[in-house]
Amino acid sequence: MIYLDNAATTYPKPRSVIEAMKSGIEKYGANPGRGSFKMAIAASEKVYECRQTAAELFNADGAENVVFTLNCTHAVNMALKGILKRGDHVITSSLEHNAVMRPLMKLRKCGISHSVARVYPEDNEKTVENFRKLIQPNTKMIICMHASNVFGIRLPIERIGELCRQKHLIFVVDAAQSAGILPIDMKNMNISVLCLPGHKGLYGPAGTGMLIVNGPIKLDTIIEGGTGNNSAQFVQPDDLPERLESGTINLPGIMGLKAGMDFVKEKTTNRILLHEMVLMQRCYDALSSNPNIELYMPKPTKNYFVPLISFNIKGKDCFETADILSEKDIATRAGLHCSPAAHKCFNTFESGTVRICPSAFSTNQDIDCFINCINNISK
Amino acid sequence: MIYLDNAATTYPKPRSVIEAMKSGIEKYGANPGRGSFKMAIAASEKVYECRQTAAELFNADGAENVVFTLNCTHAVNMALKGILKRGDHVITSSLEHNAVMRPLMKLRKCGISHSVARVYPEDNEKTVENFRKLIQPNTKMIICMHASNVFGIRLPIERIGELCRQKHLIFVVDAAQSAGILPIDMKNMNISVLCLPGHKGLYGPAGTGMLIVNGPIKLDTIIEGGTGNNSAQFVQPDDLPERLESGTINLPGIMGLKAGMDFVKEKTTNRILLHEMVLMQRCYDALSSNPNIELYMPKPTKNYFVPLISFNIKGKDCFETADILSEKDIATRAGLHCSPAAHKCFNTFESGTVRICPSAFSTNQDIDCFINCINNISK
Repeated sequence: MIYLDNAATTYPKPRSVIEAMKSGIEKYGANPGRGSFKMAIAASEKVYECRQTAAELFNADGAENVVFTLNCTHAVNMALKGILKRGDHVITSSLEHNAVMRPLMKLRKCGISHSVARVYPEDNEKTVENFRKLIQPNTKMIICMHASNVFGIRLPIERIGELCRQKHLIFVVDAAQSAGILPIDMKNMNISVLCLPGHKGLYGPAGTGMLIVNGPIKLDTIIEGGTGNNSAQFVQPDDLPERLESGTINLPGIMGLKAGMDFVKEKTTNRILLHEMVLMQRCYDALSSNPNIELYMPKPTKNYFVPLISFNIKGKDCFETADILSEKDIATRAGLHCSPAAHKCFNTFESGTVRICPSAFSTNQDIDCFINCINNISK
Repeated sequence: MIYLDNAATTYPKPRSVIEAMKSGIEKYGANPGRGSFKMAIAASEKVYECRQTAAELFNADGAENVVFTLNCTHAVNMALKGILKRGDHVITSSLEHNAVMRPLMKLRKCGISHSVARVYPEDNEKTVENFRKLIQPNTKMIICMHASNVFGIRLPIERIGELCRQKHLIFVVDAAQSAGILPIDMKNMNISVLCLPGHKGLYGPAGTGMLIVNGPIKLDTIIEGGTGNNSAQFVQPDDLPERLESGTINLPGIMGLKAGMDFVKEKTTNRILLHEMVLMQRCYDALSSNPNIELYMPKPTKNYFVPLISFNIKGKDCFETADILSEKDIATRAGLHCSPAAHKCFNTFESGTVRICPSAFSTNQDIDCFINCINNISK
């Protein structure tokens, strides 16, 4: 199989990830933070190591600020609902995933309003200005993605972070499509809360995500329960990470995520980005030379895009294209990719798109085979 | 190691669980419900198989009513906050875990009140009467555990379910300490929502839990996001399970959970219960013949208890006892076990207890070794 659905989840995972998960079941199979016996303490240490690795990778304020979640969507919900109160206003981008849009629509019913800043590909000046213009006296937060999961467009989060610093706004970043590929420095980019999936560019298993808090923000909770600390109290403890981690955490997943992040650290995000970008540029060149292919963005370059392409074969339904590719054992994804907002910006809401995204494991041969196949289908 | 902390998480897991998780990473590593290529469809089928297994095991209304969560605590929060509205009243038991008590205390701030029904060990009549007496005109729900994680006390959920049927109340059951050991029949017990951990008596991995809905209850959401269906809409879809499963689900964990439930089905809950109960009765006899041991419950029998014992060595701090046991490579848990409410009922709130709980893998030798050790420590 040629797997080009890495924007949904990376496949394959590094062997070390599977080994770490196995070890999480066989060797560290206790409930971390709950018991005081040797294996429980060893399991707690493994969890802490993963927090440390994440804190270092994203230059966060400390390992205890790394909270494990089921996925990036849970982290986004915890950030939005833990910070915003009735009467607050929040600004988001025009490209957001339903992970951001659906909670924001829900929050409208609670008196929390939002405005949408239009993103202009390759024009960071104009994009940042669009965010700036929407700031109101009651604006509390900007939340936006680091890169679009549909079009690969990279948002200028350094500059949006700087805007937030100037205007004293909380800055929440959804790094679903950038973590592991683009450098993310929470302190220097002035990111207040970073939301991450474990199973995409960080090469961890599905079932893992993270919310990382920077600075003295106290999030209210949307889920409460046993935390293994302050057990005598009926109120949720104040301390991170326990405050935001109720119930048993996903130890094998977390150990797998640690191994995945170690893989990224060893390869370096820069080298992974370069490798994938070269593949996507090669792919773009071939696709754009085929008159039957519709492309929606300029050729991807690393300053303005992540390595990801959306396209359609003219006159062919996106699902049909993906199905034919699937018959040839090429995995892509068709449709709206849970991001109707982004499609509305580029007139693909009705058609949807076929999306391809490589990983660190993708090769030139994969891309050539994909291109051959597309050229045949589109004849 | 002699592992007697199975009430926190079962260890070891069946070999089939590890194999299934591995397969979830290596063979079914796509994002289920997101792509239309072969591996994504195969992954979706694996997820569906797990829903089916759970629906059969607990006699639920259908596989689509089985929702996967991070853990049982998340399921409890989703049930409480998805059903209760300002002005509602809810009744719970006197033995509840912080997974129930902390969300209930949080909900007080939203105008949702609760009352606590005292549970009497071995007196189901009196217990049910205590629930009945607390029903008010605005009572919407009874939520209670099936069995206490501190004292093993079994609540008469069949009879409480019958009370809910008569009084038209929603009945939510926290089966954290009973699933896989006691029979649970959602339809016959009139359970509206069942909350389950995957990693305890169902022998799945940590990072898995389930919420199972019975009948036509529509839960409001506490988390929204991409669901892979109805992607064009900014509102959360109505259909289960997608409505309550935002973001990428824990595929390897879910496949492991399926293997764990298959293990339980093959052994049968009855045989697992009998095996563990014989071990705990043997243990109880030995502990109760030692004058230096404090026990808090009568000898466990299967009609009134699950196989689990809390105790203390007189004059010894519970943590000290657990630490000495840990040195001898015996894993137990000391403290309040995230259930201060239960301790307050039996005067162990100040002292805490040492808790032991066997699994299907525990043996007579494990118990004999534990007893020898306790007899030495308590001399």
